[in-house]
Amino acid sequence: MSDRTYDVQPVGWVQSSLTDRAAAPRQGDEGAPLARIVLRPAFVEAARDLHPGDRIIVLTWLHLGSRDVLAVHPRGDPRRPLTGVFATRSPDRPNPIGLHPVTIETVDEDAISVRGLEAIDGTPVLDIKPVLGAMDQR
Amino acid sequence: MSDRTYDVQPVGWVQSSLTDRAAAPRQGDEGAPLARIVLRPAFVEAARDLHPGDRIIVLTWLHLGSRDVLAVHPRGDPRRPLTGVFATRSPDRPNPIGLHPVTIETVDEDAISVRGLEAIDGTPVLDIKPVLGAMDQR
Repeated sequence: MSDRTYDVQPVGWVQSSLTDRAAAPRQGDEGAPLARIVLRPAFVEAARDLHPGDRIIVLTWLHLGSRDVLAVHPRGDPRRPLTGVFATRSPDRPNPIGLHPVTIETVDEDAISVRGLEAIDGTPVLDIKPVLGAMDQR
Repeated sequence: MSDRTYDVQPVGWVQSSLTDRAAAPRQGDEGAPLARIVLRPAFVEAARDLHPGDRIIVLTWLHLGSRDVLAVHPRGDPRRPLTGVFATRSPDRPNPIGLHPVTIETVDEDAISVRGLEAIDGTPVLDIKPVLGAMDQR
C-alpha cells in the first residue's frame, strides 16, 4: 500500500449565478439555480452521448474546502455535535470531492446545462457519470 | 479558469478477495464479496461516527484505469456502440474516481467492513460520504 498521491485534472468548470459559498444551498435539491458545465476542449468527446433528461452525477473539486479538517458541526450548526467528516457531506474533508446528482436540461457543443447543482461559479469539474438504472438497462 | 491540477491522497485502501480487474463484478450489486476499508492512521478520526448499518458512498481511485480513453464499448461488449465515457461507468476515464454505494457491516478501530464493494484489493480510497436521507434528516 503505497501512500503516493494522484493528480486530478479539471475536465471543465461550473458556470453559475452562485458565487458565494456561504450563500449557496447546502444540497442541490435545496434551491440550486440552473447552472452550466463548460467542458475543456480535450474532453468534449467524452460527453458526446449525454442527452437532455439524463440523470447524471457530477463530481467536482470543492476548491474552497479545508483539507485538514477531520470533524465538523453538521451543516455549520454549533448545536449539533462535532462529527467525523466521513459521516457528513461537509466540503471540508481530506479530499474535497463533491457529488452532485443533477438532471441535464440542454447539451451544447462544449457545455451542458443542468438543474440542481449547488456548486459555486468556477468550481472545477472532475468527472460526469450516469446514474445507474436497473441491472437489465446497464 | 486555471487548468491547474489537484493532488488526491489515499485515506485508506480496499482489502478484498477480488484481485483481478477482469474477474471483478462490474457493479457492487452484481456479486461483490464482503470487503474491508483499512484507514490510514491520520484519517481514523474522520470515520469515528460511522456505524454498522449505515449506507455510505465510498470514493476510490481506480488505479488500473486508462486516463487517456474518452470512449468505450459499454461493459466491454464490442456489440455495443462506442460511447463517450461520461455516459458510462467505465473505470477508463480522465479522472478514474469510482463511486461505490455500500452498507457498513462492522466498524473496527482503523477499518470498516462493507457489503457490496466491487473494487479490487489494494484500490486506494479517497473519501467516504453518507448517503443523504430526506431533507428533515440532514
